Amino acid sequence: MIALLTDFGDTDPFVGVMKGVMLGINPELTIVDLTHGIEPQDIGQAAFILKTSLSYFPPGTLFVVVVDPGVGGSRKIVYVRCEKVEFLAPDNGVLYPSLQHHRPLRIIEVKNTDYFLKPVSRTFHGRDIFAPVAAHLSRGLKPEFLGDPLSPEDLGKGSFPQPYQDPEGIWHGEVVHIDRFGNLITNFSQSQIHLKDNARLELEIKNVKIQNIAKNYEAGEGKPAVLMNSFDTLEIVLAQGSAAEFFKIKKGERVRLTCRMSSC
Amino acid sequence: MIALLTDFGDTDPFVGVMKGVMLGINPELTIVDLTHGIEPQDIGQAAFILKTSLSYFPPGTLFVVVVDPGVGGSRKIVYVRCEKVEFLAPDNGVLYPSLQHHRPLRIIEVKNTDYFLKPVSRTFHGRDIFAPVAAHLSRGLKPEFLGDPLSPEDLGKGSFPQPYQDPEGIWHGEVVHIDRFGNLITNFSQSQIHLKDNARLELEIKNVKIQNIAKNYEAGEGKPAVLMNSFDTLEIVLAQGSAAEFFKIKKGERVRLTCRMSSC
Amino acid sequence: MIALLTDFGDTDPFVGVMKGVMLGINPELTIVDLTHGIEPQDIGQAAFILKTSLSYFPPGTLFVVVVDPGVGGSRKIVYVRCEKVEFLAPDNGVLYPSLQHHRPLRIIEVKNTDYFLKPVSRTFHGRDIFAPVAAHLSRGLKPEFLGDPLSPEDLGKGSFPQPYQDPEGIWHGEVVHIDRFGNLITNFSQSQIHLKDNARLELEIKNVKIQNIAKNYEAGEGKPAVLMNSFDTLEIVLAQGSAAEFFKIKKGERVRLTCRMSSC
Repeated sequence: MIALLTDFGDTDPFVGVMKGVMLGINPELTIVDLTHGIEPQDIGQAAFILKTSLSYFPPGTLFVVVVDPGVGGSRKIVYVRCEKVEFLAPDNGVLYPSLQHHRPLRIIEVKNTDYFLKPVSRTFHGRDIFAPVAAHLSRGLKPEFLGDPLSPEDLGKGSFPQPYQDPEGIWHGEVVHIDRFGNLITNFSQSQIHLKDNARLELEIKNVKIQNIAKNYEAGEGKPAVLMNSFDTLEIVLAQGSAAEFFKIKKGERVRLTCRMSSC
Repeated sequence: MIALLTDFGDTDPFVGVMKGVMLGINPELTIVDLTHGIEPQDIGQAAFILKTSLSYFPPGTLFVVVVDPGVGGSRKIVYVRCEKVEFLAPDNGVLYPSLQHHRPLRIIEVKNTDYFLKPVSRTFHGRDIFAPVAAHLSRGLKPEFLGDPLSPEDLGKGSFPQPYQDPEGIWHGEVVHIDRFGNLITNFSQSQIHLKDNARLELEIKNVKIQNIAKNYEAGEGKPAVLMNSFDTLEIVLAQGSAAEFFKIKKGERVRLTCRMSSC
Repeated sequence: MIALLTDFGDTDPFVGVMKGVMLGINPELTIVDLTHGIEPQDIGQAAFILKTSLSYFPPGTLFVVVVDPGVGGSRKIVYVRCEKVEFLAPDNGVLYPSLQHHRPLRIIEVKNTDYFLKPVSRTFHGRDIFAPVAAHLSRGLKPEFLGDPLSPEDLGKGSFPQPYQDPEGIWHGEVVHIDRFGNLITNFSQSQIHLKDNARLELEIKNVKIQNIAKNYEAGEGKPAVLMNSFDTLEIVLAQGSAAEFFKIKKGERVRLTCRMSSC
């Protein structure tokens, strides 16, 4: 099974053409769209969505990630196999957060043009490289035929922001995704912050301090609240409304997280 | 076969993750997206789309409906089997219009956590309950293993508006959906209104009275018209234009329907 | 395999319902969405997307095109078989550019109502004619059962603009598609213009003359450039930005192409 994650949207034929190429090589393939709604060239958003989604897919799923502003330039394309999942992606850091939780067992730089469409265009490697290589892998192609091995240290980490804790214990992060309901999803994750169950948080955004903790989207109508969401990430919500509209916020807005009375 | 109807949109990974869960349980599953473009938490729109679409799917299709503002609260989740179709949905009235035409033969309250993902989040039952339960049903799980039976009277009717006829014979309804072409789809359906073939209608919206009846989208350029559409529902159209833009109208706008000279 | 190309968007149930009908007739069918994001009733855009995408699909793919402003009127519906691909589409010119490269071997006017849903609505032939006919064809129905043969001269050419060269050698074309990244895709194709590899071009749009040639999307930040894209079509790009926003341009904007010093 192949899961696709791109910034191609759905008004262009890019995704359809990639599927045409893949099914031409392996007609038995099951392809799932993780989403194609990543904002154009937003590697950080794609990295976040991938990290928080991948554990819900069956073992052996190959994630094909085409968020690739450097297409046609010097960036590498890599195949990475972990114990439960596999990836095919540009080496631009988009895999970095996922690989913190899934140790790479094998990394290959994809270079063997035998498995590419010809001629390879300079602007659509999704169609000419990612799609055919993924389809050949799904038919059992051994990854070592794709190119030479790399070590984990060879992989790029990208330049998108990671949350960090300052010397005073305050966490600094940002809104990495705004979902369809206007919920503001931060990059504070439970696995990183290690909140206790009854932690008393204060989350600050745009000079507003939120101490209200919600358990679901019905709580506390009219007042913003913080919620540990279904992807183990802190998000800012507004019952029966859109937190994004309430705060007039865009992706990238800075957030600060404090634990009151050393509760977390 | 499973048909999915949600308000998840396509820029988030919600639908992709649900498919990952389902295909992990049943790799042979065929999943069709009815639409994920229901406006956030709009139970009435989802109910309308479901009712008007379901008869075009093959017998035995399981419709999984996740338009669920009460997720994580006290609302029930129900499985309903009718003669030709099956449903898995929150008990918030979204099934009510469909069940007027498809008599429920069996209703089960979905409670058995054996078939849920663990832990069940409080905010994404689509992934943690609907997807795995649907996939297990598709593999032949007997619905009675999911929980206890309910009777039809136990089901919620929702609070979204239904069309009604006043003592003077005037029908009152509203625009329940605006399609991509700007056509204004009302909740007046042929099965409810029983129009005669040559009925002389007058439909009033925003103080404009429309008597012009169109047979297709080419008729009467520049003037709004009423058309009995392909889902047996009255809609307001504008040839070569958008009726929504013409009337500057949003979903929910009230409409009145009169039959002139007792013709219907 | 069936590839779908429509202007139905993704907020309506139109595409989902078509798939329900097709899978009811042929449950084994593989359906790929080429795109449903064609602008409403824009036959020219659909024709362009189809022509530039179809060679990436496996031989034998049936392309079902439902961009059909004349639905319910007098336009014909046609089935066309070429050596490698097949089409089912309204006879409104949408196939014309594709058929310049793929010679039609057999053309049938689709008229036999035995393979339609009944009753056939006047406004949704996608569901009532295209979907069931396509599904029956995928199960092996002989096209001659659908209706009488037509000759290539019987097919419409549509009224959307084609690029042309004036007596002074200047090519006149237009922006036929703006992709998600804001790239302006013209209808100047390599197969028509026959550019030499080192041709010195000048492309004029909105009184701005562009001589800058880019090889990928990273080149020449801040200045618009011309690029021969992955579909062998000239497009106007802006590194790290949107050419559409830069020029404040809509689809349909006229462009002129000159080869300097007789270089092409």
